[in-house]
Amino acid sequence: MSHSSRREFLQATAVASLVAANAIPATLEAAEDKKVNSSTNAFDYQHTAAPLPFDAKSLKGLSEKLIQSHWENNYGGAVKALNTLRGRLVQALNDANTPPYVYNGLKREQLIRTGSVVLHEFYFANLGGDGKAPADLRTRIAASFGTFDAWESEFRKIGLGLGGGSGWVVLGYNTRLKLLENYWMADHSTHAADTRPVLVMDMYEHAFQMDYGAAAAKYIDAFFANIQWDAVAKRV
Amino acid sequence: MSHSSRREFLQATAVASLVAANAIPATLEAAEDKKVNSSTNAFDYQHTAAPLPFDAKSLKGLSEKLIQSHWENNYGGAVKALNTLRGRLVQALNDANTPPYVYNGLKREQLIRTGSVVLHEFYFANLGGDGKAPADLRTRIAASFGTFDAWESEFRKIGLGLGGGSGWVVLGYNTRLKLLENYWMADHSTHAADTRPVLVMDMYEHAFQMDYGAAAAKYIDAFFANIQWDAVAKRV
Amino acid sequence: MSHSSRREFLQATAVASLVAANAIPATLEAAEDKKVNSSTNAFDYQHTAAPLPFDAKSLKGLSEKLIQSHWENNYGGAVKALNTLRGRLVQALNDANTPPYVYNGLKREQLIRTGSVVLHEFYFANLGGDGKAPADLRTRIAASFGTFDAWESEFRKIGLGLGGGSGWVVLGYNTRLKLLENYWMADHSTHAADTRPVLVMDMYEHAFQMDYGAAAAKYIDAFFANIQWDAVAKRV
Amino acid sequence: MSHSSRREFLQATAVASLVAANAIPATLEAAEDKKVNSSTNAFDYQHTAAPLPFDAKSLKGLSEKLIQSHWENNYGGAVKALNTLRGRLVQALNDANTPPYVYNGLKREQLIRTGSVVLHEFYFANLGGDGKAPADLRTRIAASFGTFDAWESEFRKIGLGLGGGSGWVVLGYNTRLKLLENYWMADHSTHAADTRPVLVMDMYEHAFQMDYGAAAAKYIDAFFANIQWDAVAKRV
Repeated sequence: MSHSSRREFLQATAVASLVAANAIPATLEAAEDKKVNSSTNAFDYQHTAAPLPFDAKSLKGLSEKLIQSHWENNYGGAVKALNTLRGRLVQALNDANTPPYVYNGLKREQLIRTGSVVLHEFYFANLGGDGKAPADLRTRIAASFGTFDAWESEFRKIGLGLGGGSGWVVLGYNTRLKLLENYWMADHSTHAADTRPVLVMDMYEHAFQMDYGAAAAKYIDAFFANIQWDAVAKRV
Repeated sequence: MSHSSRREFLQATAVASLVAANAIPATLEAAEDKKVNSSTNAFDYQHTAAPLPFDAKSLKGLSEKLIQSHWENNYGGAVKALNTLRGRLVQALNDANTPPYVYNGLKREQLIRTGSVVLHEFYFANLGGDGKAPADLRTRIAASFGTFDAWESEFRKIGLGLGGGSGWVVLGYNTRLKLLENYWMADHSTHAADTRPVLVMDMYEHAFQMDYGAAAAKYIDAFFANIQWDAVAKRV
Repeated sequence: MSHSSRREFLQATAVASLVAANAIPATLEAAEDKKVNSSTNAFDYQHTAAPLPFDAKSLKGLSEKLIQSHWENNYGGAVKALNTLRGRLVQALNDANTPPYVYNGLKREQLIRTGSVVLHEFYFANLGGDGKAPADLRTRIAASFGTFDAWESEFRKIGLGLGGGSGWVVLGYNTRLKLLENYWMADHSTHAADTRPVLVMDMYEHAFQMDYGAAAAKYIDAFFANIQWDAVAKRV
Repeated sequence: MSHSSRREFLQATAVASLVAANAIPATLEAAEDKKVNSSTNAFDYQHTAAPLPFDAKSLKGLSEKLIQSHWENNYGGAVKALNTLRGRLVQALNDANTPPYVYNGLKREQLIRTGSVVLHEFYFANLGGDGKAPADLRTRIAASFGTFDAWESEFRKIGLGLGGGSGWVVLGYNTRLKLLENYWMADHSTHAADTRPVLVMDMYEHAFQMDYGAAAAKYIDAFFANIQWDAVAKRV
């Protein structure tokens, strides 16, 4: 994708994009912090796609083609769908004839796309690193799982079980339970209640089929080799 | 449920309960803050049931029998199941013969019970009030939905669409999108990613069938009449 | 519900009801066979609610109030929703601006209501009997599960696991696998592919909360005591 | 995959395979009819993978690599998982300490794999043709959807809405409603109750990502160009 077509894409994903061409954030911090939203009203809000926080060519064992398609089609598609859905929801809510179950059909789609948008942003933002977890983070994780390896072992096992299906593995901090734990998640829409994602791995087949076919275990290796642990550390 | 049987129940829901009989919290703050957990290790953690933050007899239009059964059987059952599941998970993870999809079958059950435990605690803690939203909270909600009534109208519509099925309506703050919005949720396990629950309404049939049969709209009225808005205000 | 209000209800559930007041079927065979549909076109079809194949007052341990509400509100509500959804689907399909994911939001609701309508009809039609399985059916079931008791034990266990949530237990004949087996099902929409329901037990809370509160096991006993095995025998 | 490794795979997918190497069925009829099962007991049954009913190299626009991986890894993986799960279920049922919700976690996995096995078999069996629907089948479909094009238009729209997620589009005959209609299905486990699959299209990403990336519409074109309508005609 050329620089200009990427710019067009970013603009298209927001109904009223406020992102100027020369303002596209190019660093991790920018991608995480510089969210430009058109509104804070739940009915008007339009989401602006966050750019990839790393060069699509730079990952080890994950091809530029795969990453670009993942970001542009799957994440970008979710942003566009979420923005479109909000308009449909307002229309449906203002029509007194809308039965509640028809309205909820749209709300469910909104929940799914919201999950897809949010989890993809966490996912891309925790890629682009060298895969080496800093010592203090290893200690923090070990404190919650007995050992760092016990954590990694469960995280990978959940991932393997999702290969061939679709879902996410999330290391998250459950604010209510005051607990750091690994979660199995499916369909973009399941999520542990009241939980802050810390490390997010996409196990939808679009995350690896192009490069690895059905070999999910090889993709999981590649994912671990590219973890941006500094980003993860800021979320714990 | 007598005071002593309630005490036994609270103890039974934790594998190694640290709650002394005379330490059962009786106020909202206690229920919200004084969580006693046996461990912060994801594999060992055992959850202690939070007591009802109000007198089960005190709600308007929701019977003591319903509330007591809801708290004891549905919430209490989820706590017990969650605690049991953790033991099963450790067993399965330590057995090298466990296929990943069998492990994930347990992880999915864990996700469902985690959602049930967490959402029920938010639910009971936002009941027991007089249903009158303070002015500043009304203003805050209006800022996010155009008007307070627009918010309430969508919240109720989602609830109506869930009547006869099972699920939750959640007003939540989406930390990633920096957005306060209403969510349709089902099966304890769907949830908006990275979202803090603010107001939680249980639409499972166990929340109202005993008192209202299939008349979900009447239950929603009763729910609104009993909202503890002070608790809600602290979560925004 | 008086006879005349019941008649009105039956008529209301079909957009263009062909059921004359004096033609309401009153027996099991009538309920199973005399389906009156307004069209065989997938886009026009409107479903007519099947009457209860037994007297709502006649079941042992399941109250008239519960059965009547279940049939009228939950089953009847699903029929109405399904009929309404079909109109919405045609509208959406004819509108070139409908995004596929918005269309699928409606298709999912249609799938859920279709499951609810179909499974409720099987459920009511396998109630109203004396609970005594005829010898040849016991033999047939024993041939597929080792013993009749092994079948019943698994069927009940699945039911217990659904108490407090929502779902169905179905003994079904899987045409593809040429196998009679028990299935866990949830949300009206999960179902074993290519499978004919043989015995259907509703475990949604609306099937028992009014009479039994959270005591799902007691409801399962009552269900077994009222099975109409002759209807079941015809489906194997 | 060589002939001998394919033979090994087929054998491995059944615990006690009865398929002799020289008895591997090579035609559509063989694949549909010559199912060799080790038992008709629900607790003992072990499924034997059905061979591809066409040459993996022979499809237009769907590569041998994709088809082979789809059949071997996704379908084959589901067969193996289903067979393994049955053993786990028997073990869990015989252990009086198994909580019902733990048992149901396994039953849910069984339901998912059963759907995957059954739907994949229908899918592969309705591929390998020239994509030209015979006149009488076109007439039959037109009778149920107004026109053949109206049917195809809805079928494709549902497919497009699933691209990027995971699920199935199924033209099915609903025996209860006496209706031929299109269904949206997800996660292998949702299915219209009491419905016989007639035409089945896999929209999981493993069905197309390797060849088409995120371009689901192109895959749908390829699917239609390869439909084996004679197989479909036999199912109506």
